[in-house]
Amino acid sequence: MGAEQAYEELIRRVREEATLASIEALLEWDEETQMPAGAVEGRSEQLALVAGLLHERGTDPRLGELLGELEGSALLADPDSPAAVNVRELRRDYDRYVRLPRKLVQDLARITAVAQRAWSAARNASDFSRFRPYLERIVELKRAEAACVGYEREPYDALIEDYEPGITSAIMGRLFDALRRELVPLAARIAGAGSRPAVGMLRRAVPLEGQRRFGERVAGAVGFNFRRGRLDLGVHPCCTSLGPADCRIGLRFDLRDFAGGVLTVLHEVGHGLYEQGLDPQFYGTPMGEAASVGMDESQARLWENRVGRSRGFWQHFLPRASERFPEALGDLDLDEFYFAVNRVSPSLIRVHADEVTYNVHVMIRFELERALMSGDLAAADLPDAWSEAYQRYLGVTPANDAEGCLQDGHWAEGLIGYFPTYTLGDVFAAQLFVQARRELGNLEESFARGEFRELVRWLEERIYRQGSRYPSARLIEVVTGGPPNHRPLVEALRERYGTLYDL
Amino acid sequence: MGAEQAYEELIRRVREEATLASIEALLEWDEETQMPAGAVEGRSEQLALVAGLLHERGTDPRLGELLGELEGSALLADPDSPAAVNVRELRRDYDRYVRLPRKLVQDLARITAVAQRAWSAARNASDFSRFRPYLERIVELKRAEAACVGYEREPYDALIEDYEPGITSAIMGRLFDALRRELVPLAARIAGAGSRPAVGMLRRAVPLEGQRRFGERVAGAVGFNFRRGRLDLGVHPCCTSLGPADCRIGLRFDLRDFAGGVLTVLHEVGHGLYEQGLDPQFYGTPMGEAASVGMDESQARLWENRVGRSRGFWQHFLPRASERFPEALGDLDLDEFYFAVNRVSPSLIRVHADEVTYNVHVMIRFELERALMSGDLAAADLPDAWSEAYQRYLGVTPANDAEGCLQDGHWAEGLIGYFPTYTLGDVFAAQLFVQARRELGNLEESFARGEFRELVRWLEERIYRQGSRYPSARLIEVVTGGPPNHRPLVEALRERYGTLYDL
Repeated sequence: MGAEQAYEELIRRVREEATLASIEALLEWDEETQMPAGAVEGRSEQLALVAGLLHERGTDPRLGELLGELEGSALLADPDSPAAVNVRELRRDYDRYVRLPRKLVQDLARITAVAQRAWSAARNASDFSRFRPYLERIVELKRAEAACVGYEREPYDALIEDYEPGITSAIMGRLFDALRRELVPLAARIAGAGSRPAVGMLRRAVPLEGQRRFGERVAGAVGFNFRRGRLDLGVHPCCTSLGPADCRIGLRFDLRDFAGGVLTVLHEVGHGLYEQGLDPQFYGTPMGEAASVGMDESQARLWENRVGRSRGFWQHFLPRASERFPEALGDLDLDEFYFAVNRVSPSLIRVHADEVTYNVHVMIRFELERALMSGDLAAADLPDAWSEAYQRYLGVTPANDAEGCLQDGHWAEGLIGYFPTYTLGDVFAAQLFVQARRELGNLEESFARGEFRELVRWLEERIYRQGSRYPSARLIEVVTGGPPNHRPLVEALRERYGTLYDL
Repeated sequence: MGAEQAYEELIRRVREEATLASIEALLEWDEETQMPAGAVEGRSEQLALVAGLLHERGTDPRLGELLGELEGSALLADPDSPAAVNVRELRRDYDRYVRLPRKLVQDLARITAVAQRAWSAARNASDFSRFRPYLERIVELKRAEAACVGYEREPYDALIEDYEPGITSAIMGRLFDALRRELVPLAARIAGAGSRPAVGMLRRAVPLEGQRRFGERVAGAVGFNFRRGRLDLGVHPCCTSLGPADCRIGLRFDLRDFAGGVLTVLHEVGHGLYEQGLDPQFYGTPMGEAASVGMDESQARLWENRVGRSRGFWQHFLPRASERFPEALGDLDLDEFYFAVNRVSPSLIRVHADEVTYNVHVMIRFELERALMSGDLAAADLPDAWSEAYQRYLGVTPANDAEGCLQDGHWAEGLIGYFPTYTLGDVFAAQLFVQARRELGNLEESFARGEFRELVRWLEERIYRQGSRYPSARLIEVVTGGPPNHRPLVEALRERYGTLYDL
């Protein structure tokens, strides 16, 4: 068999896997947004069946043969060509997948299916002890996973690299140290500042259905394609791809948090624009996928923070919101509202955190899960360790487990090593935005006119269409001319909050 | 291997197939109700993949081996036991499936996927010629299917029996003859009657969202379980099972057809109650499935016609509708409304037909598709044959193809031989309702008090929980004491319309 034939067969197989995975995504999206409550058991049967089919295909020795035939062939001479990129990435996926015994994969699928419900019940009761046995089992299985995959320095490395190839615990540790040294003093200076926003206006009641429609308007304005995607109300905000032209965004609105709802829309639509901007000719292969979880997150954070928290964005949208909701928002002043949206204050809940303290929340999770994986921290000691870390870094202490270590569902889903990608995303987003401004001029002025197309086009060309051509760090280098660097994020925060708080 | 082990393996395999089929059903339901328009191509890839997996499993020679081992074993001594029923029905499915070459199944899947869109476009343009080539190809493939399956007298027999085992073209021909001899004169006497309902009140505008909510209320009142199912707005009314506790109903409302919307709700909820009433311990096996398509349809027609068109039903619900929609329905008189809901008039569109002429519409389709299959009618001649039949039996002539032979999407879906089950359903429904009244007393009085539970419980015991234990004709016999018989339907119609039209 020639290399071209081998490549064709490889792509055919991988596309079929992608189609199966997209069916799995539909089962999950439907469960989250549509499925009647009583159907959980049947759904877990369907998910288990598809997971089994995926494992069967993803570990098929024939894949290994095909990859082996292709590696070293002339077809891959250019390392940045689609074929070379796909073989490189598929090799990494395959090598990881075949090291995982089917039993481990199934055990994880089973425990996380029930753990999510246990977590939810534990959070409602604010009682960590109800979730503890599940967390213990998940940590045990994730340590087994790390052992199967292998690592050089510590088990946590084997988990991070599943989401962000090339990133290790040590690299993340240094990044968090650098950020903490900047952000904690910045937050302290803000806390001591004389000026302070009035925040009551953020809590005014805006009808949920109206918020949903306004969200659709914002999504459409920044370029989300409703012929190839949709927005729905779900339990957790999320963005899922169910096929090459089927991007589903789940949203949640709060009656008394209009601005937060708009920022959530921008966050998820940021993911959605990336998804919709991928090159469809490469659908189902790495060349048609996001470069990494962190790069995907960078797109969400860019739209949420660099666009949605900007004065220009609200210069355009606040008058429209005032017109649409005259009773609640008719009398708002742009500068006061802009200041309120960007209030900074140490808090307990990550998803409601401001931009300055957000990455401290992420860092706490990073430190704790790293310790859980190394064995330095027992699951039973998590609530105390959590409280100590919040007190130490943010000066606040959760009153109970619900606003402490039970606030995030990630661990119940088996996502350990995932949190660092939030901070990487923030760092990448700031670098990309600086570069975009350098090339496109004053973007805030465009936002103020309701124009976002130029920025989307730039991201499409530089990021979306590249798929997984480059590892994330190299993509940052190709686009911005320099390696990943936390300085642009720190500078963006200093600039915005220095002005707002008159530091 | 002992019979018990063989049975266990058989059931395990069949359940997995059922789980796969339920995933296929989710893909279809989502396409109909949720999927963004641009995602059609990706969805057809997903459907093709699942269809392939289903064919692979459904024709696995291992199934034949297991069935062979079980047949004649002591395990099946009682022919009405769950094991005997499952083996009997699975044998029939298997023998049919293995006769169909994979290529034929795939060709049919492919052509019907595109034919549905071509049909829709042709109907919008009211131009049969655009759909003709697809219909020709489908007829050709369905004749090939009939040839593969085999038949004694005519190819159409091989298609009907896929939906209604035991029913042949000849049996259906006699049934339609008998019905026509009764219904055509009844319709003529109604046309000549002196009294006539005022129908303007049926066309009053009722907001769609209000209709949807009222529909949910009706569904809940008759016993639909919303923890294990849901109602949605879709393009075509439908009821789909996505798992043992996940029954999804698609509905369509018309601003100026409130009563029609309620009848559609009852029709689909009739399917849904059957689905929700099947014995969950047998999920995924014939014992946990409807006895036949006609029996399934009987449940829909029973709730739509015997309940929803009754005076008692509206005695309860009309005051509630008047209260909910005071502007449109506040001033209605029960008897006038009841008469209007049951107006009879020959018409062109089956789905809007009254109860008396409905089965004439079905008969026309039966005659035409039977002729298409035998070769007596060429697809090109369909529009003329359609017009002639409508003129002959109903005295009306379609002005164009959209209100003629393009009105139903069944043939584009590859459903040939399916229409007869509508009339069988109507016949069964009338027989069952007579029997229920015999055992439960005056049901109309219960309906007038908003009580439907007694009827649902009776159906649950007699029909739902029986699954496919008996073939449909025998189930009718077991429940009513006599074989399938069109007389109860004719008598029910004579009674209702004799009174209403004062014949």
